[in-house]
This record gives sequence, structure tokens and C-alpha cells, in this order.
Amino acid sequence: MEGGGSAEDRFIARFFRPIARSGAALGLLDDAALLSPTPGTDLVLTKDAVVAGVHFFPDDSPASIARKALRVNLSDLAAKGAAPVGALLAIALPKGTPDAWMAAFAEALGADSLAFGCPILGGDTVSTPGPVTITITALGEVPKGTFVPRTGARPGQAILVSGTIGDAALGLRLRQDAHHPAFAGLGEAQRAHLLDRYLHPQPRLALAPVLRACAAAAMDVSDGLAGDVAKMLKASGCGGHVEARRVPLSAAAAAVVKADPSLFAVALSGGDDYEIAACVPHGRVAVFTAEAARAGVPVALIGETRDEDGLSVVDAGGNTLELGAGSYSHF
Amino acid sequence: MEGGGSAEDRFIARFFRPIARSGAALGLLDDAALLSPTPGTDLVLTKDAVVAGVHFFPDDSPASIARKALRVNLSDLAAKGAAPVGALLAIALPKGTPDAWMAAFAEALGADSLAFGCPILGGDTVSTPGPVTITITALGEVPKGTFVPRTGARPGQAILVSGTIGDAALGLRLRQDAHHPAFAGLGEAQRAHLLDRYLHPQPRLALAPVLRACAAAAMDVSDGLAGDVAKMLKASGCGGHVEARRVPLSAAAAAVVKADPSLFAVALSGGDDYEIAACVPHGRVAVFTAEAARAGVPVALIGETRDEDGLSVVDAGGNTLELGAGSYSHF
Repeated sequence: MEGGGSAEDRFIARFFRPIARSGAALGLLDDAALLSPTPGTDLVLTKDAVVAGVHFFPDDSPASIARKALRVNLSDLAAKGAAPVGALLAIALPKGTPDAWMAAFAEALGADSLAFGCPILGGDTVSTPGPVTITITALGEVPKGTFVPRTGARPGQAILVSGTIGDAALGLRLRQDAHHPAFAGLGEAQRAHLLDRYLHPQPRLALAPVLRACAAAAMDVSDGLAGDVAKMLKASGCGGHVEARRVPLSAAAAAVVKADPSLFAVALSGGDDYEIAACVPHGRVAVFTAEAARAGVPVALIGETRDEDGLSVVDAGGNTLELGAGSYSHF
Repeated sequence: MEGGGSAEDRFIARFFRPIARSGAALGLLDDAALLSPTPGTDLVLTKDAVVAGVHFFPDDSPASIARKALRVNLSDLAAKGAAPVGALLAIALPKGTPDAWMAAFAEALGADSLAFGCPILGGDTVSTPGPVTITITALGEVPKGTFVPRTGARPGQAILVSGTIGDAALGLRLRQDAHHPAFAGLGEAQRAHLLDRYLHPQPRLALAPVLRACAAAAMDVSDGLAGDVAKMLKASGCGGHVEARRVPLSAAAAAVVKADPSLFAVALSGGDDYEIAACVPHGRVAVFTAEAARAGVPVALIGETRDEDGLSVVDAGGNTLELGAGSYSHF
């Protein structure tokens, strides 16, 4: 009997061994991966699952699906101030998934794992009667004691957010309802920008060392800015306010919101931004902003924490906006 | 707006926070878990997914499903000589999964994580239009440099296996075809034994230090003894032979095989054993066996590695048995 000759082994050898080049992956020939933690570091562990029809469209390209599956985890690492160390992949595939689909998925995952310095260390491949389901566990490291928690905000700190908010949620709307009048005035490049922000999260790993140096608390914005900031403040035992007009919008998002102001709530609470919200003591805001800019990440001051319960999102007139749930929930 | 008040957050708070009591889990209030590796250790990482209708029956009890999902990963750690450090869980649930199902799943997972010293550190809960899908990433540690690889076997070493082989595969047959004449002579306790071996893997964590001390190579037997040993030998660059009559069978399995000798092949290649196969230099076999017994784990010498390609499983007359694929494959 020849070992290592099962269809499953050949599948792994064909699609995943080429992208698992780290020594820690042991050539995917073992039951497990082997990692020597860097002395003086703490490990940061995160695990996100994405399901076809829930987190992505079944007809999204396999390359886009691979990128999203990995990057949503890298975004969590970035928010904690961590640098990626490696990732494990579990993929459940319907029988009959074309080889070309798998090849494109694995190639994109390999390219992203190289680009973001996060080698694929191992995992599991199983069949499912259900939709494609991808679970990635990402490991990162921080110098000992420098993990940036969600719970460290205190009253009287600045609330900042990276990049622009709402593009992904509006991109999803555009994809679902391309002929909605709010999108009529957009040029091709602006449409492409919104669609791409939904498809391809850009984890803010460059911000990680800046967060470690300056932030009291941080989290990535995945389920909607308003809900996620509220969650961070509640976990920290305080509240706060966010000024809606200070929330940074891309030119495309601003055009959409101008055409249909009701979509501002979608931008503020729609999710899939994969930006980072942080609470920073006022004395560190100038350094935080300057260092973020040096790292290539624009950040904007959007509000302040307060010694109260709950988060208010207020408009230019000081009125509290009604944002519904404020964030996406599976249940 | 109240943060942390989404249905998803309440779901996590209700079912998972009570079982995630380790400090590293940060109360499941953060984006990630935080772990300080023990100085002088290497990390061992493994990730297995189980899918309803593929790896377990959709009507298995949620407690049994939870145990299987965790224990198949602990079995991988044991085979590498590792002690558990913690685990991350991703669970994809159909909408409308009863709360009672989740409560029973979480309670059993919590109990197992305590019993095996493997705290739940975090994870993800998502909805799916497909079957229940559970992915667990388990982390273990070994003293630096003592990881037991799959690739370390050399010609002329003893092949040993823990416990008994075939119970789970025969238990699955019994469950699928309870009136098959091969099972007619079994008593109730023997039937219960076979069914339980299929439902509830018993990870051989007690064997981990013995493997570190004595084994050149090891892997857990999850896809069938014959195929898995062949895989280990191929990964090590050698071959070998296993004497079928030396493979340890429980009284129940022996009775079934006696009643229907064609089921011997099922026992040898059916999988779900979660025992450990190891290659041990002959000079260490006595120590290995004695230390395993002290750890409460019976081990049996079943064959020898050779400087050749492939594994032969031979009967008492020296004839090679035909076992078909020799192991389970998803593809």
C-alpha cells in the first residue's frame, strides 16, 4: 500500500503545498504546524469564518474570496497592534468544486500570505453538502505587554478612525441595486472604488506599531462604525459621542450620501470597512496622527469618550442620529 | 446607542463566555485572544473541521458533536507530544438552531475543555444556509526541540499502536446496519462500546510525554490504521510491514470480525480510531511500553519499518491483505 496517495493528499499537495512554504508548515506533511514564538513576545490569536451566501456572494471570484477570508483576520491583528506570524486555513468545499476554482483560490491566498507576511501553516480540507465555508485562524505577535485591548478607553480621550468609512457598505448596496438613483451620478472609477472596498478589505497592518505606541483601546470596524465604537466604549466601561460630519468619507461615498442622505446611516452602520477605530489620550493625538501619516494611513478625529453610558452619534446641529441596530448581526 | 447589545453579542455572552474562563480569552470581549507562550517551548498548531452529515450525524447529540470537534484536534496534539494550551472555535449554525442545542453544545465543550486542560480562547459564530460546521484550532506546546514529527521513522524501527483499532469504524457500521448478522452475537455492553468509540474519541494526551521520550515518528490514527501508517512511513522515506494478527482488537471488535471476517478490513482501514501509531527504535520499545502502561495507555507492537517503499499488511500466513484505499478520503 502506498501512503500519501489518497485523493485528499493529492489535493493538498497540488493546491496548498505550493503556498505553504514556511518552515513552520512542515511541508503540510504532518498532523500539525510547529512554531517557535519569538522570545519577548505575546501571541495574538484570532479566528473568523466566512460562508458563501452570508459573507460573500457565491459567484465572487475565488481570488476575491481568498483575499477576504485572510484579510478580515489580519484586520483583527492590526487592531491589536500585532504583526502577523502565520495562519491556518480550514475550507469546506461542495463536492464537484472545479479544480480551476481551487487553483485560483490557492494562488490568491498564497500571494496575499506573501504580501502580508502571514505564511499559511496548515489546516484542514473537508467536503460539505452546504456552501463553501472558510475559516482562518491568524496568529500575530506583539512585544510583551503591548497588546492593544478593546477595553482600555477612559473618559476624555479622542476617538479616531483610519481611512474612510462606508465605502464597503455602499459598494454592497451598489452591487445589489446598481440602478438606485443615489449611484446615478458616480463615474466608473468611483463605482469601482466602492465595489472594490466591499470585495477586498485592506487590513491596516501599517497602523499596528502606531496603535501600540499611542492607543488606549482599539478595534477593527467590521460590523459598522457606530455599533463597533459603541461596543468598544461599553467594553471599556465608558460612553462617548461621535460627530457624524467628522466621519471621513471617500469622494464616492460623499457623492452617494449627497444624492441620497438616507444612505448616510448605511455608511455609518453598514460594516465591512476593516478600518480601525481607536481611543487615544488627547496628549498623544498629534503623535498618533503624524506617525499614522508616516505609515501611510490617514486617520481622523471623530469624537470623544465621556464618563457616561452609550454612544451618541450627533449631526452638525447636535441632534442624535437614529442608526437602527448600528451594526450587522448574525442572529 | 448601547454597544455590545447585538443579538450576536448576547449569543456569545450567553453560550460561550461561561466556558471561556481563561485569562487569555479576555472574556471574549476583544477581537482576539492574548497568549504568553511558556518560555522554552515550541507551539504546536492544528486545525480540524467537522461538518454535519460528513463527520457526524446531524441528529447526534450536541454534546457528542462538541466532544468530537474538540477531541479530534487534541488527538493531533497528543500525537506530536504536545500538551494543550487552548483552542479557538468557529461554528457556523443554521438559522433557527434551538437555544437548547447551543446550550448543550457549549456546556459539553466547556466540560471537555476543563477535563483536557484546553481552555476556549475565542473564535467566531456565524450563520449558514448549510449544515452545522465546526472548526477548532488547538494550540499545544512542547519543550523546545521535542516535537514528534511524522517524518522521523527510519528503517528497522518498531511500529506500535495505542489502545484498540477498528472499534469506531465497526461502531459506525453497527449504527448504519444494526441488524447485520456480524453484530448479532454482541451483548449490550459490547454494542455500546463500539457505538461510543465512534461518537467519542479519547485523545491519548497521556501518551504525549512518552512519545517525546521514545518515538522517532508518530501520528494519530484518524483515517484508518493501514493508510495512516503508510502515510507516516512514506513521509519518513521508508516502508514497512504490519502483522494484521498483532493489531489489537477489543473483545467486541474481535467478536464481530470472528462472525464476519470480511469486516477485518473495515477495522484496519475504517478510521476514527484516534489512537496513536508510533515508530520507536527497538532499543526504546521496552521503555516506551512500560512508560505508556504507567500512563494508563496500552500499546502493542504491530510491525517494523523497512528500507523499502510502501507498507504491507500481512496475515498470519505471510500473505498481503487487500485493504482497498486503506483510509478515508474526502475527495
